[in-house]
Amino acid sequence: MGENFEMRLKEFKEYMTRIEYLNSATSVLSWDMMVSIPKKGKAYRSDVLGYLSSESYKLQTSDTMKEFIDYFISQENLDDVTESMVRNAKKSYDQTKKIPEDRYREYVVLASNSFSAWEEARAKSDYSIFKPYLEKIVKFNQEFLEYWGYEGNKYNTLLDLYEPGITVEKLDKVFGELREAIVNLLEKIQKSSVKPNTDFFYKHFTKEEQEEFGVFVASKLGYDFEAGRIDVSAHPFTTTFDNKDVRITTRYDENEFRGALFSTIHESGHAIYEQNIPDELKGTGLATGVSMGVHESQSRYYENILGRSKEFWKYFYPEAQKRFKQFEGVSLEEFYKAINVVEPSLIRTESDELTYSLHIIIRYEIEKELINGRISMDELPKVWNAKYKEYLGVEPKNDAEGVLQDMHWSDGSFGYFPSYALGNLYGAQFLSKLLKDIPDYYSLVERGEFDKIHEWLKENIHKHGSVYKPADIIKMVTGEELNAKYFIEYLNNKYSKIYNL
Amino acid sequence: MGENFEMRLKEFKEYMTRIEYLNSATSVLSWDMMVSIPKKGKAYRSDVLGYLSSESYKLQTSDTMKEFIDYFISQENLDDVTESMVRNAKKSYDQTKKIPEDRYREYVVLASNSFSAWEEARAKSDYSIFKPYLEKIVKFNQEFLEYWGYEGNKYNTLLDLYEPGITVEKLDKVFGELREAIVNLLEKIQKSSVKPNTDFFYKHFTKEEQEEFGVFVASKLGYDFEAGRIDVSAHPFTTTFDNKDVRITTRYDENEFRGALFSTIHESGHAIYEQNIPDELKGTGLATGVSMGVHESQSRYYENILGRSKEFWKYFYPEAQKRFKQFEGVSLEEFYKAINVVEPSLIRTESDELTYSLHIIIRYEIEKELINGRISMDELPKVWNAKYKEYLGVEPKNDAEGVLQDMHWSDGSFGYFPSYALGNLYGAQFLSKLLKDIPDYYSLVERGEFDKIHEWLKENIHKHGSVYKPADIIKMVTGEELNAKYFIEYLNNKYSKIYNL
Repeated sequence: MGENFEMRLKEFKEYMTRIEYLNSATSVLSWDMMVSIPKKGKAYRSDVLGYLSSESYKLQTSDTMKEFIDYFISQENLDDVTESMVRNAKKSYDQTKKIPEDRYREYVVLASNSFSAWEEARAKSDYSIFKPYLEKIVKFNQEFLEYWGYEGNKYNTLLDLYEPGITVEKLDKVFGELREAIVNLLEKIQKSSVKPNTDFFYKHFTKEEQEEFGVFVASKLGYDFEAGRIDVSAHPFTTTFDNKDVRITTRYDENEFRGALFSTIHESGHAIYEQNIPDELKGTGLATGVSMGVHESQSRYYENILGRSKEFWKYFYPEAQKRFKQFEGVSLEEFYKAINVVEPSLIRTESDELTYSLHIIIRYEIEKELINGRISMDELPKVWNAKYKEYLGVEPKNDAEGVLQDMHWSDGSFGYFPSYALGNLYGAQFLSKLLKDIPDYYSLVERGEFDKIHEWLKENIHKHGSVYKPADIIKMVTGEELNAKYFIEYLNNKYSKIYNL
Repeated sequence: MGENFEMRLKEFKEYMTRIEYLNSATSVLSWDMMVSIPKKGKAYRSDVLGYLSSESYKLQTSDTMKEFIDYFISQENLDDVTESMVRNAKKSYDQTKKIPEDRYREYVVLASNSFSAWEEARAKSDYSIFKPYLEKIVKFNQEFLEYWGYEGNKYNTLLDLYEPGITVEKLDKVFGELREAIVNLLEKIQKSSVKPNTDFFYKHFTKEEQEEFGVFVASKLGYDFEAGRIDVSAHPFTTTFDNKDVRITTRYDENEFRGALFSTIHESGHAIYEQNIPDELKGTGLATGVSMGVHESQSRYYENILGRSKEFWKYFYPEAQKRFKQFEGVSLEEFYKAINVVEPSLIRTESDELTYSLHIIIRYEIEKELINGRISMDELPKVWNAKYKEYLGVEPKNDAEGVLQDMHWSDGSFGYFPSYALGNLYGAQFLSKLLKDIPDYYSLVERGEFDKIHEWLKENIHKHGSVYKPADIIKMVTGEELNAKYFIEYLNNKYSKIYNL
């Protein structure tokens, strides 16, 4: 690693920094488009975003980039960060360069039209409008997989885009175990005589009061408002401009209490992760959460494992009662049960902590077969509905509340869904280690002292950014490979108590 | 103008569009930095902005740009838009390319440090901190003028940066006449027994009420909220992302009524101008107001000529009284006098419609001499204070309320100040024509019917964007060259009535 190496590395980082700047600008413009833009400004903004994206794309796929990759790949004994930086750059370089340019261009156009078709199809609840587009999208993905190559199942390569290192073989096992456990548990819960009352959540809560409480909770958890802010958008999201400006959004329903609050806590989990990524990773392309799955493990840990625990509300409920007269006469126990009520539903985004994973597993099972050409476009809605019936005991009355509910397939994001359920599994596995490392975890939570937990997450997970692969992180942190055991245990424990099973 | 010409023009416009995209992105990021950014996000944002600016700069000064310019300059019989497009591109190309790169880089660093020094100097009210920086800034400008060249007075070239075509010869004349007229009028006003009461403006007005009224007035005037929005920032401004997204900001003082309202009206004037620029000018670099001065003519027309007229308030005052109980018992006449009270002050940004131009004329007179090396750095504060004493009858007690009050010199924006007063002159000259073209002007205003006026401004001024030079616009619209007569008449008429002169 002589002088030349250091010089090249410096150049490489400067080059990556330009990509990061463009991506940061793109994120600001997109955030503004979701949060602030006046109606008529959207068309031009799309053009500007298209331009910036294409500039970033050019840098990511340039000959200069290839030279950097070739040079560093030929070097031995790279440190973890540099190795990861090169692997990462190579992955996105290959992902694009292996596809013939004209095919990729056709695909981009198709994906855009497909999204419009999906919107129309959902509005009209008519799958047949979307079907021809979906068929083409799937075929394109199958074609791309031939360019990209794959090991074992074709779908592995798509999974790898969102969750590096995860495979069908692995997921079949953990999702299989998880599905069985949840379906069993759900059956018992539905037979239980415990029926939590949730009426008090449907009173009137002003936007301002909800917002203030959300800010109070998020601050307590460690979301740094000097490096972020909360705004309103149609769909809640988190976006990173850099680790010092990580913004979240939520939406307020003045006639329902839980939605805004838990989405704020969820997004705070994502944002705390991003805020904790160290400055040193800037200029490497690694200054962001490592994968969708690990990201969801953080947001779901905050939202569910922590945010729907009894200890959490032992601390926050008195404050909530002080602020919201609507909870007068509602005991902590009643409140706790009500935020954990289990109700199998048709819509993923409205589902509870227990059944959420089933929604994902259904999508995983279907995607896998679609990509391998084992479900036809015609039978897709039937397969969908049958799985909902079998696992959740509910059946869509139409396509809009069935196969058309999510936008993910319209732009070809196959392989993305599993991350959501992986987040649950990772989260519970992290929790088991967290409890060993911080024996007084529960009493800290009861006292509203979240610093140690925040610090643990930062030191064990956040500070690594994207340096290590998800599987490595799990292993480094917990000493074990990913497995479903911890999450299943967690669910059994939690719901047995709530539902007297 | 054969096929090749058309093809080259298309390419040129595509090239200009890239610059416009970058500038739009830069504007969004800057707006966000003024309006939304969390504290810790500013440092990285500055870096991103620096990067985008340098990318835009590269495009503006590239060899490709030179080829476009050379090609189109050699063509004959260009239409107005193309000719202007080339002239404009050439101007900004030359402006940069004529300066040796290392000198320019030094200057950028100096300007940045100079701004910090100015901030500190103003905070400590100590000119000596700023003096060495100002001295260097002036020297750099003098050096640049040698590269750029000049005709007549050196200062002409600087004026031309902000107000193409305006010269010292012209300004000496119109500003001379204007100064004399205002000083005379001010003398009479100060002797008048009329002393408008403004107490009722210092009651408590909530931010929300002020905002609602501001939105009401701005909408009535024709500011399109589907192509814009109002936010809060430390200093009010207008920014254009494209003609369909032109945003304004204001600031609210809950203990003073006028500030936020008139700044909203002022910025609405800028914004209406930008919203009315036609789509066809996109991709030419001309899709923006033609000059600072013409821009100010629009904002000041809305704020002062229209917004502080009695007819305007005949319409709006009943609405204001309905909304603000604070005005109970205050007659329209009293209200009207109170928004037009004349009070010579030390601070430009706090001055009234009459004396505002004197603040500008003082700066013009000083800048001109500074650039020509006829005022030394040591005597500058004394010259400043003496002119305030002479023209306005007030004298700064310290540097902060004197020579240090504006940031403009800290980044070397010499030649910018005159635009503000030119706006007043243009505005009154436009008014004289407006009154001829719309004989029922005053009764329209009294009835709150602003469409015809809006349309007149759009057709005569706004729709041209930057296609014609300011002097050409004035001539085209009014048939006369710029002169001080109309504004002086306007002032004499208005204040004679208010102050019974």
